[in-house]
Amino acid sequence: MKLFGTMKLRETGCLEIGGCCVEDVTREYGTPLYVYDTKLIRDKCSEFKTNFVSDYFDTDVIYASKAFLTKAMCNLLAEQDMSIDVVSGGELYTAISSGFPAERIYMHGNNKTREELEMAIEYNVGTIIVDNEDEVEELNEICEAMKRNAKVLLRVNPGIDAHTHEYIQTANHDSKFGVSIYCDNTKELIRKIVESENLNLKGYHIHIGSQILLESSYYASIKVIVDFINKIKEEFGYEAEELNLGGGFGVYYSEEDTPFPLGDFLKTLTNKIHIEMVQKGLSINKVMIEPGRSIVANSGTTLYKVGNMKDTYGGKKYIFVDGGMTDNPRKALYDSKYEACIANRLFDNNEDVYTIAGKCCESGDILIKDINITVPKKGDVLAVFGTGAYNYSMASNYNRILKPGVVFLEDGKAIEVVKRESYRDLLRNDI
Amino acid sequence: MKLFGTMKLRETGCLEIGGCCVEDVTREYGTPLYVYDTKLIRDKCSEFKTNFVSDYFDTDVIYASKAFLTKAMCNLLAEQDMSIDVVSGGELYTAISSGFPAERIYMHGNNKTREELEMAIEYNVGTIIVDNEDEVEELNEICEAMKRNAKVLLRVNPGIDAHTHEYIQTANHDSKFGVSIYCDNTKELIRKIVESENLNLKGYHIHIGSQILLESSYYASIKVIVDFINKIKEEFGYEAEELNLGGGFGVYYSEEDTPFPLGDFLKTLTNKIHIEMVQKGLSINKVMIEPGRSIVANSGTTLYKVGNMKDTYGGKKYIFVDGGMTDNPRKALYDSKYEACIANRLFDNNEDVYTIAGKCCESGDILIKDINITVPKKGDVLAVFGTGAYNYSMASNYNRILKPGVVFLEDGKAIEVVKRESYRDLLRNDI
Repeated sequence: MKLFGTMKLRETGCLEIGGCCVEDVTREYGTPLYVYDTKLIRDKCSEFKTNFVSDYFDTDVIYASKAFLTKAMCNLLAEQDMSIDVVSGGELYTAISSGFPAERIYMHGNNKTREELEMAIEYNVGTIIVDNEDEVEELNEICEAMKRNAKVLLRVNPGIDAHTHEYIQTANHDSKFGVSIYCDNTKELIRKIVESENLNLKGYHIHIGSQILLESSYYASIKVIVDFINKIKEEFGYEAEELNLGGGFGVYYSEEDTPFPLGDFLKTLTNKIHIEMVQKGLSINKVMIEPGRSIVANSGTTLYKVGNMKDTYGGKKYIFVDGGMTDNPRKALYDSKYEACIANRLFDNNEDVYTIAGKCCESGDILIKDINITVPKKGDVLAVFGTGAYNYSMASNYNRILKPGVVFLEDGKAIEVVKRESYRDLLRNDI
Repeated sequence: MKLFGTMKLRETGCLEIGGCCVEDVTREYGTPLYVYDTKLIRDKCSEFKTNFVSDYFDTDVIYASKAFLTKAMCNLLAEQDMSIDVVSGGELYTAISSGFPAERIYMHGNNKTREELEMAIEYNVGTIIVDNEDEVEELNEICEAMKRNAKVLLRVNPGIDAHTHEYIQTANHDSKFGVSIYCDNTKELIRKIVESENLNLKGYHIHIGSQILLESSYYASIKVIVDFINKIKEEFGYEAEELNLGGGFGVYYSEEDTPFPLGDFLKTLTNKIHIEMVQKGLSINKVMIEPGRSIVANSGTTLYKVGNMKDTYGGKKYIFVDGGMTDNPRKALYDSKYEACIANRLFDNNEDVYTIAGKCCESGDILIKDINITVPKKGDVLAVFGTGAYNYSMASNYNRILKPGVVFLEDGKAIEVVKRESYRDLLRNDI
């Protein structure tokens, strides 16, 4: 069990986050509950902003909001001078509703609807990342009709797949995202955007994967994309001014994950970009990255109440909690690993191996398989770590289970930022 | 492509469901949209009710509401004289809010919270299926405190796993559900419930899996559970009056699935129960089954609008639709197969192989891989079949994408029963 950010072991045996005893927090706000260490979120933003800089070009750190987005999160990001990337009308609406500056919003998506593109133009979103030829045409039409211009980046697929520890070049030529740097059509598409009076092509966007634990994947992608920038420049004179390298920076979930140190990596990254550019006789005005998971994953913890327990005939010991795959579907979806503890009795060393399962009527509703943990008692607080990314955002109402609330913890204060759903919420759209 | 229920090919080339042209329906209610053929739901209820009968014991067909539940669905079930099983406070609240008779509700769950158990008692739910020893104790306490009695079934694990085409006895001794018929503790637990003044043990509940395509799995489970009933009777005189066999009856999703004919199966099932009982010198008052998927899966169709299309460098052809893993996570979760068609141009035989992907910012957001389908045009209506179960109920707001509405189609009328979510809905609990 690894402690993150402001986490501390109180002498009482209770886990402390942001100066708050988590057991007290569950008494006030109930369980299951998503709690966030906002100081750690801020520190992470700061780590990115401080290290991802260059003497040779501007940089921007864009938070990938699909990882976790609420109005309070938008406010926190605005304070940190971060940008935000959104991938849907819903994310855009959330950012705009919180008062987040539109010019610092980047709009993504492989299949933005016409309404979403219009919304982006209407709201004056800073940059639209266009994904494919159909979208370029539609956006052009919309701009024409609305008599507006749009600043765009083209998402290109560099043919590198780095979803795992190792990267595999040429492995994801079948990705649904972007247009391949190897397709002749891509050149024509770039020419079309450059020639459009409504679209202002600033450069390219790439994204090579998620939960990447190998720095060299990124360095490899820089070589490939700089080569491509150069090739397009040589072929018809268009030189990208901006380059967005996407995100995917891996985090610690369990002992299986050894993320690379961010600070050194980010410095090396900007240096390598500069070197590649110089070697090709190119220059770039601005480089962006899009961390999501690496900003929030370790800042978030889910607090559950231990309910029934069970020893099976097959010899498995279960701890059932009052949530499950509805608030964290990542084990069911990706077989993700998490660490956890009995958060109100940290110094009890009477341990055993348990499987932590949820309350859904589904066999796959497991949170953690075979974890060594303090022998629990009914009513104990079970904390699952590293749930800050893709938990709240992927939560469902399967089994008509209510979505937990979200509470920010800092300086001994607990601030509820999203209320727990109510039964009435479930029926609000039933006619 | 298999047509279900009232589906027809109109001469105009449009798919008709419940007498409605689906293209018209999407014009009125937008996309993505869940539509249901309510006549087919009724017919399915009726097929179960008509065939699951016996001259020797009462029967009850209980709809497993986790598959799909809305207030309108509750009303439809009430009209069909069906019972409902619920697995959470949210499902219970939905049924009760629609005016569904509480005595016809069965309350399930491996980890019902104290609040949920109290709610069940408060609402006077017909039967509570108790899952484990901890729960028996808690329910007993609650009944004591509330001065009420509860009719209960005990969920037992018969050690049969039939999640696939073949059943494997002794395979799921590690299930999180119920107590094993092979554990000595189970006998003691039964004795405890029988001796409790607050709990009225009516019998047992078993459930051997999901999407079961082999009848013999059920017949095998009957032998095992009747043996168990007999063993307990012989050991300390308790004879079950009721037996709930659960659900799991497989349906057609794609050509890979060959479900057994229900009518014959249900008749054989009741006969086999009677024969087993007679052979053991036992009798039973009531036998229940719990179909969910088999009532609604084929009654539901999801309608999408075709958006951008893409040919990748790797040679894959994508159709992007305006929904995806947010409204149907089953491909991502279970690698489920679905059939689909371009529903507004059914007679166009210009076909090709496409992968249908959604609009989420996630590589795994695929609905159907490599399907032979009419070459689509932007704006076409794409219908995915067999989405009536575990789609609406498992939907999420990942990427802050809005949940689709639900429309019932019957006799040429489209009746909206759940409104599409709005952007404001997303923020309703943000503080």
